[in-house]
Amino acid sequence: MKALLVDNSSGKPVMKQGEHPMPKPNPNELLVKVEATALNRADLLQKAGNYPVPDGASPILGLEMAGRVETTGPEVTEYEEGDLVFGLLSGGGYAEYCVIPEAHAMPIPDLLSFEEAAGIPETFLTAYQGLFWIGEIMEGETVLIHAGASGVGTSAIQIAKQLFDARVIVTAGSSEKLDLCRELGTNLAINYKTEDFAEVIEEEIGSSSVDVILDFIGAPYWEQNIRVLAMDGRMIHLGLLGGAKTEDLNLANILRKRLTIRGSTLRNRNDEYKAMLTGEFADTALDLVESKQIKPVIDSVFDWNDVEKAHQRMKNNENAGKIILNGM
Amino acid sequence: MKALLVDNSSGKPVMKQGEHPMPKPNPNELLVKVEATALNRADLLQKAGNYPVPDGASPILGLEMAGRVETTGPEVTEYEEGDLVFGLLSGGGYAEYCVIPEAHAMPIPDLLSFEEAAGIPETFLTAYQGLFWIGEIMEGETVLIHAGASGVGTSAIQIAKQLFDARVIVTAGSSEKLDLCRELGTNLAINYKTEDFAEVIEEEIGSSSVDVILDFIGAPYWEQNIRVLAMDGRMIHLGLLGGAKTEDLNLANILRKRLTIRGSTLRNRNDEYKAMLTGEFADTALDLVESKQIKPVIDSVFDWNDVEKAHQRMKNNENAGKIILNGM
Repeated sequence: MKALLVDNSSGKPVMKQGEHPMPKPNPNELLVKVEATALNRADLLQKAGNYPVPDGASPILGLEMAGRVETTGPEVTEYEEGDLVFGLLSGGGYAEYCVIPEAHAMPIPDLLSFEEAAGIPETFLTAYQGLFWIGEIMEGETVLIHAGASGVGTSAIQIAKQLFDARVIVTAGSSEKLDLCRELGTNLAINYKTEDFAEVIEEEIGSSSVDVILDFIGAPYWEQNIRVLAMDGRMIHLGLLGGAKTEDLNLANILRKRLTIRGSTLRNRNDEYKAMLTGEFADTALDLVESKQIKPVIDSVFDWNDVEKAHQRMKNNENAGKIILNGM
Repeated sequence: MKALLVDNSSGKPVMKQGEHPMPKPNPNELLVKVEATALNRADLLQKAGNYPVPDGASPILGLEMAGRVETTGPEVTEYEEGDLVFGLLSGGGYAEYCVIPEAHAMPIPDLLSFEEAAGIPETFLTAYQGLFWIGEIMEGETVLIHAGASGVGTSAIQIAKQLFDARVIVTAGSSEKLDLCRELGTNLAINYKTEDFAEVIEEEIGSSSVDVILDFIGAPYWEQNIRVLAMDGRMIHLGLLGGAKTEDLNLANILRKRLTIRGSTLRNRNDEYKAMLTGEFADTALDLVESKQIKPVIDSVFDWNDVEKAHQRMKNNENAGKIILNGM
């Protein structure tokens, strides 16, 4: 089959279409003809050789997809040839075909395109996991979502509003991105380039007023994050885009405010965890996807032959929402 | 009634016996004749003016006691005059009489003295809360308990061994203290004054091998704690005796190992929380206290007129286990 492979022959890594052996489904897996896949930041890291591929995962990039079931393993019970499915992959989305455990697949709701469906799994499952499983968000709490216009950010805004009736605060770096966040239901949108988000929150909402923070930035925001957290607040680190090291750690507020700080990732979780997360998300939120109350924010769609342009757009932080590849 | 009060007339705070109004029980409270109380580190802070008294709490020191029910409020259903009880107080133990919500009291098991019973609530409820409620310890996990010979330390060793069949590692600062920890069931006891605890754990147990850490030290141990934590490990800060500030925070391991860092305290929890914790502890562990499988470690017993000597002993870190006051 055809697949996009990392070519290092020029001295720097470039995606090139090439031939790769067709994957073989395990007894509990579906072989799927990929119709669309979506970019994730991990793709850029993996392409550069900085993201180890988990044991047993496909070496091909691509952590999510939407497509059509081609064949099924003998133990598969819920799907058959021709079904339209989407879901998380441990790798392999940048290809004509991929395999996925039946328990990681979800049926594509009516009226949803392949491109829309492909943009859902990573961001919505990450947001759901981060806010609910890890952050233990409760009805009506106040949530701060950094990088609000990112894929996970836009998903988290919708999950927080639609499922937990939360008060949502976001940070983003342009007025277009802030507007997008507001359209999705954000209550307070802060431009981190022109304002100190902690000061704005203290003025507009109150001091120590945030129950849950979804953070992708890490060290540069640590002190301000701790400062705005409320009693029993939780800070969830899903990424460290701004760096991991800070020179000023003060534990006093962690103890005084009884804070919880947790790091989490989705990709290195085991199959059982991903199956449980997928199942719970499908039961809880797929109706809202079907009724368009929850929708993936699609930034742009590229033919998979233009993958380098797509990667460049993500690398430059030009996207608001998901970047999709199709045309496999 | 007589009580021990803080006297600042000499320019430094000293405990002196004096007169204080008798407390009046609320409808759901017991008035208890105190027979024994126990010291806590918070007593020293409060005496020095560095520990704010929670709203509604007695200004008198003393966070736990054992005694005899004198009278009961009209809504009390489980206890009557003459019953022997012990439990957590939000203050008021250093006195002839105190009040306690019925739901915070536990019956003193047969064969347990007032002095033994008074040494149980703070340390065992803190240890139970820290290990199970906050640290979410699971059967057979590996636990690192710093200050293993302290009141909370000796309680945590027993809770971890008796209730959760854990592998227990402790740190302490003398061979006597390490022996005490071993007698209580500790598997690996490390002298932090002569050895690097992280190195010893890595040699004896393995790298990234600790599931739950109970920490009272804070900043000086932060980096080593993070280093020995296993995947999905949890570090619970119950105190910051060694300081709150460190200059070197690296978040990378928090994300990579999916760690949880939590601060917790017991005293500033609300009444409902303390009642739930007391009830669950009594249901789970009081049988083991009665059968002496779990026992408070009593360092020493002082007449309450010798309270200054008792405080000095704690201040100098000379105690292994609880320091008790009686003779009220």
